[in-house]
Amino acid sequence: MPVAVSGCRVLPVTALPALGQVRVVLSHTSHPGNIGAAARAMKTMGLTRLVLVNPKLFPDRQADAMAAGATDVLAAAQVVTTLSEALAGTVLAVAMSARRRELAVPPLWAREAATEIAAASTMGEVALVFGNETAGLSNEELLQCRRWAMIPVNPEFSSLNVAAAVQVMCYELRLAMEMPGPPPEISGAGLPATHDEVEHLVAHIERAALNSEFLDPASPKRLILRMRRLFSRAVIEKEEVNILRGLLAALEK
Amino acid sequence: MPVAVSGCRVLPVTALPALGQVRVVLSHTSHPGNIGAAARAMKTMGLTRLVLVNPKLFPDRQADAMAAGATDVLAAAQVVTTLSEALAGTVLAVAMSARRRELAVPPLWAREAATEIAAASTMGEVALVFGNETAGLSNEELLQCRRWAMIPVNPEFSSLNVAAAVQVMCYELRLAMEMPGPPPEISGAGLPATHDEVEHLVAHIERAALNSEFLDPASPKRLILRMRRLFSRAVIEKEEVNILRGLLAALEK
Repeated sequence: MPVAVSGCRVLPVTALPALGQVRVVLSHTSHPGNIGAAARAMKTMGLTRLVLVNPKLFPDRQADAMAAGATDVLAAAQVVTTLSEALAGTVLAVAMSARRRELAVPPLWAREAATEIAAASTMGEVALVFGNETAGLSNEELLQCRRWAMIPVNPEFSSLNVAAAVQVMCYELRLAMEMPGPPPEISGAGLPATHDEVEHLVAHIERAALNSEFLDPASPKRLILRMRRLFSRAVIEKEEVNILRGLLAALEK
Repeated sequence: MPVAVSGCRVLPVTALPALGQVRVVLSHTSHPGNIGAAARAMKTMGLTRLVLVNPKLFPDRQADAMAAGATDVLAAAQVVTTLSEALAGTVLAVAMSARRRELAVPPLWAREAATEIAAASTMGEVALVFGNETAGLSNEELLQCRRWAMIPVNPEFSSLNVAAAVQVMCYELRLAMEMPGPPPEISGAGLPATHDEVEHLVAHIERAALNSEFLDPASPKRLILRMRRLFSRAVIEKEEVNILRGLLAALEK
């Protein structure tokens, strides 16, 4: 049931952005205490779905201690070995990053990201991805996410704790989803492709480029990076993925 | 010179809202680790003035550990014995509370509170007051503050860690006081393709689809329309056109 947080806006149930559609993905977290604190941060804002990519230590007593009353979130957490598994089935993944990157779509600010996630959550599952405490997310991880976002920080001390970043983002999501703006007007738009559909398309292009000897031997990765970036920016749709893959398959014959 | 702070509000430069005008007051904090984590949270958002009312343990090794690079905030922290001393000289004090109180003044939401604090900071020093981890602020403490505010939380699990609450409020203050500029420019975005480059790409796809017998005989135009829509939505770039045409040509061989 929709709950008015501040004001009295009530949306139809079928189009309600839902916190339950959001998974928080923590990649390569070093300190189990941060996993616990992140679980607590999530639950205070009404989020419950935690996915851990290669945590250094989990489960762990320190994670339980820091989770306080959110041990149920930890108990239900899914542990996987690759970010790709963590993102399977999502229609939008937003990577959180503290630093600038090359070859990426432009970043969003945290608040804008929350708005995008809220809108996308009406269409399917979404993910918010946080990297390792020291290194953050790798470029490879970041490129698997359709969008990336930054929390505005003091440029002279940008060392936001990972659980604190989870807290800020979950807070923004709670506000964005429980006090949503008008739904986006997209006429003629189809369903967005899921993470795995895009990955299969990228893999197909790479295969076709290799077999046809098209890959630039000087920078074999660049072609794939550019294609990823194009599909991200466009928010590529299911039907478009199907057309491109169908065309590739026909040409490969 | 007038400076736009947020939207259409215009303030004279002499009265700019300033994060340096804000003191964070932690009253009767039990765990020194929370004091350290609060200092770190403050500094990431550009706040530096910490006042501690009767902390259970301070200074403390655990506070230093949790502060990470914000030990300077701890070193400069003022320790006092009453909330009244902590608030001396302020023009506005906002008490943070997690629960509803039987008080004459209605609470503000966190974001509204940040706006009020930003406005008041143009007139003098302001304080944001956080209570003990278990008991929160006493009614007596709360009544010493002109305003009180709540962070919207999950009503079924409202147990926000005190440093996490400091993080959320300092984040809101940073946004209210220092409107972030546009996100940093990302190099790596290329030149957009020209109209004729896109037309040649579309023609190339159509040719390849015909020759490979991929075109859907039921709706031959639809494929091309979808591709046009994708490229225009993405604002496709020169290099991307070149990659796609190169790949098509290689596959056609």
